[in-house]
Amino acid sequence: MTDVAVAGGGLVGLAVAWRAARRGLSVTVVDDAPGAGASAAAAGMLAPVTEAGYGEEPLLRLGLASLQRWPSFAAELEAASGRPVGLRTVGTLVVGFDDDDVRELDALHAFQLELGLAAERLTPRAARRREPSLTPRVRGGLQVSGDHSVDGRAVHAALLAAAAAEGVELVRDRVAELVVDGGRAAGLRLAGGAAVPAGQVVLALGARSGQLPGVPPLPVRPVKGQILRLAGAEELLEGTVRALVRGRQVYLVPYGRDGLVVGATVEDRGFDPTVTAGGVHDLLHDAIDVVPGITELELVETLARWRPGTPDNAPLLGPASLPGLVLATGHHRNGVLLTPVTADAVADLLAGGPLPEVAAPFTADRFRRD
Amino acid sequence: MTDVAVAGGGLVGLAVAWRAARRGLSVTVVDDAPGAGASAAAAGMLAPVTEAGYGEEPLLRLGLASLQRWPSFAAELEAASGRPVGLRTVGTLVVGFDDDDVRELDALHAFQLELGLAAERLTPRAARRREPSLTPRVRGGLQVSGDHSVDGRAVHAALLAAAAAEGVELVRDRVAELVVDGGRAAGLRLAGGAAVPAGQVVLALGARSGQLPGVPPLPVRPVKGQILRLAGAEELLEGTVRALVRGRQVYLVPYGRDGLVVGATVEDRGFDPTVTAGGVHDLLHDAIDVVPGITELELVETLARWRPGTPDNAPLLGPASLPGLVLATGHHRNGVLLTPVTADAVADLLAGGPLPEVAAPFTADRFRRD
Repeated sequence: MTDVAVAGGGLVGLAVAWRAARRGLSVTVVDDAPGAGASAAAAGMLAPVTEAGYGEEPLLRLGLASLQRWPSFAAELEAASGRPVGLRTVGTLVVGFDDDDVRELDALHAFQLELGLAAERLTPRAARRREPSLTPRVRGGLQVSGDHSVDGRAVHAALLAAAAAEGVELVRDRVAELVVDGGRAAGLRLAGGAAVPAGQVVLALGARSGQLPGVPPLPVRPVKGQILRLAGAEELLEGTVRALVRGRQVYLVPYGRDGLVVGATVEDRGFDPTVTAGGVHDLLHDAIDVVPGITELELVETLARWRPGTPDNAPLLGPASLPGLVLATGHHRNGVLLTPVTADAVADLLAGGPLPEVAAPFTADRFRRD
Repeated sequence: MTDVAVAGGGLVGLAVAWRAARRGLSVTVVDDAPGAGASAAAAGMLAPVTEAGYGEEPLLRLGLASLQRWPSFAAELEAASGRPVGLRTVGTLVVGFDDDDVRELDALHAFQLELGLAAERLTPRAARRREPSLTPRVRGGLQVSGDHSVDGRAVHAALLAAAAAEGVELVRDRVAELVVDGGRAAGLRLAGGAAVPAGQVVLALGARSGQLPGVPPLPVRPVKGQILRLAGAEELLEGTVRALVRGRQVYLVPYGRDGLVVGATVEDRGFDPTVTAGGVHDLLHDAIDVVPGITELELVETLARWRPGTPDNAPLLGPASLPGLVLATGHHRNGVLLTPVTADAVADLLAGGPLPEVAAPFTADRFRRD
């Protein structure tokens, strides 16, 4: 019997497992294809401010807390795994194309100053000095020095290695059921029939978290996102560029030697796995609008995955209504950003401590009607 | 020793092999990945008129001769292989978007009437009655009843089966060299080191035909084309739609149960294998412009291959300057269309007959300077 069984070997599940193992717990992760879910599609932006909507201040605080942890988390992870995770700290450039876009930049700027964050409005000329491959049609820019990025797939690979080095066992099978015994989560049943009995169970199945038999009802729904990966972008962009293209959003996140992620659609279509002609077209169209040199890049990969959405776009962290079950899901568009704070908070709880204050607003009981 | 060794197991090489074997010759085809070259990207249009440029009348005659053979070729191939080849005989609809496009339709119409071919100018309304998924922005149409299509990959699979049934041997290795003995083509050397000695050798290596060591200089160059395959197009289009979109051309060719090929870029970039962001964008953009419902389809495949181009866009058929070597290459954009006439003409020659008159204008010596 293992102390902790983690259902789901994506970024969140593995990070929780690694951090829990470092606290001395025995941990088993179950996933038939670790990293093949939303983690495979994550662009790796660490952008709490530009991602948070107005009126989502608790989520923003959580994001900022996690962003602060990223440099040390990345350093520890690289040391533990011996693998680079591609942290880029050159900041993020937000650009706009028409009057409405520019007003949006101004509002974003004011919001950031209000929060005490470093942000600088740029003229079109200054924006292009920062990223010379930008189209001359850019109407204004905003340099957000604190918004960074990592290579999401590199982080996942490093977490696999770090978790293994810490003694985490990875079982490559599909999680079929939450085992409940005496009104308490007691382990995981595998598709192959075997069980992983455990003292506590962590639910980190992303958009499928609410689908696992045995799990109490959870307000998690799939929010489809399509992204593209391009190659040949060496020196095309220094850092992440986010653009408001006549009201539509697109982001360009460089990674590795010459990679570029272009994302992302946001679609309410259930578990539709389709990469569509329209989705790919819109992403390419907007990206080429922002950086015309993208036409020459190689289109390496198109994919569609599902973000775990919740009613307030914030994650579900900490104890579930079922004793022994701990939630680490519902990260929606912020999975990579929120990985360190999620892992630390959930590991604290698993190790017997209270749920840290920063995570307390995100327990599932905020949705309970009573 | 085999009577005939064929270098290249694409559509043309296999069809030649099949037809030669039916004439009683022993035939060996060598290809490490049969059908993975230009054949994999072929949309399958059988459209001699809309593909032929002005001043290319000999090529047009060859295309018309091959088009005439397609129904019986398809029937024989289906009978010999037991596999369908997806011949569609509903004709092709050409549409235009602006004044220049409409003038182009008129010119094409006049050209077709001059040739005695069935073609009918359609109002925008009539064009949309024929294909209701067309955008209302279409300015005019031309119904070309004689231009058909096949499923290129289905044809290739059928040729593999038919050739095997006729006793053709397929060696799955890369062709490394043309063996020349006493000033005569004498077989093929394989990458693995072995040789296939043969009485005659057919060169059907597509864009790579001029690259094979031992082959005399040939004016064949790669002309890159990018295409897309979409799924979910059941009942979206009845037949092929070609569009002139403000001077740019795009074609939409339905195949199978719900497939749709969108093609194609024409790029002079040597053997560049890259599927580019710009290429995919332009194809999607133009296709969606013509049939807006395409946005909803699944993008299943993007690929880039090389057409074998020649200085006059026409194939190289018949005897090479080197005795014992027979050419079946240089088919550029017309590989699928020209497969039957090529196979029959080359098989006649291999069997000891003269090169049929229809193929005579396409021997390589038309490019000899003397």
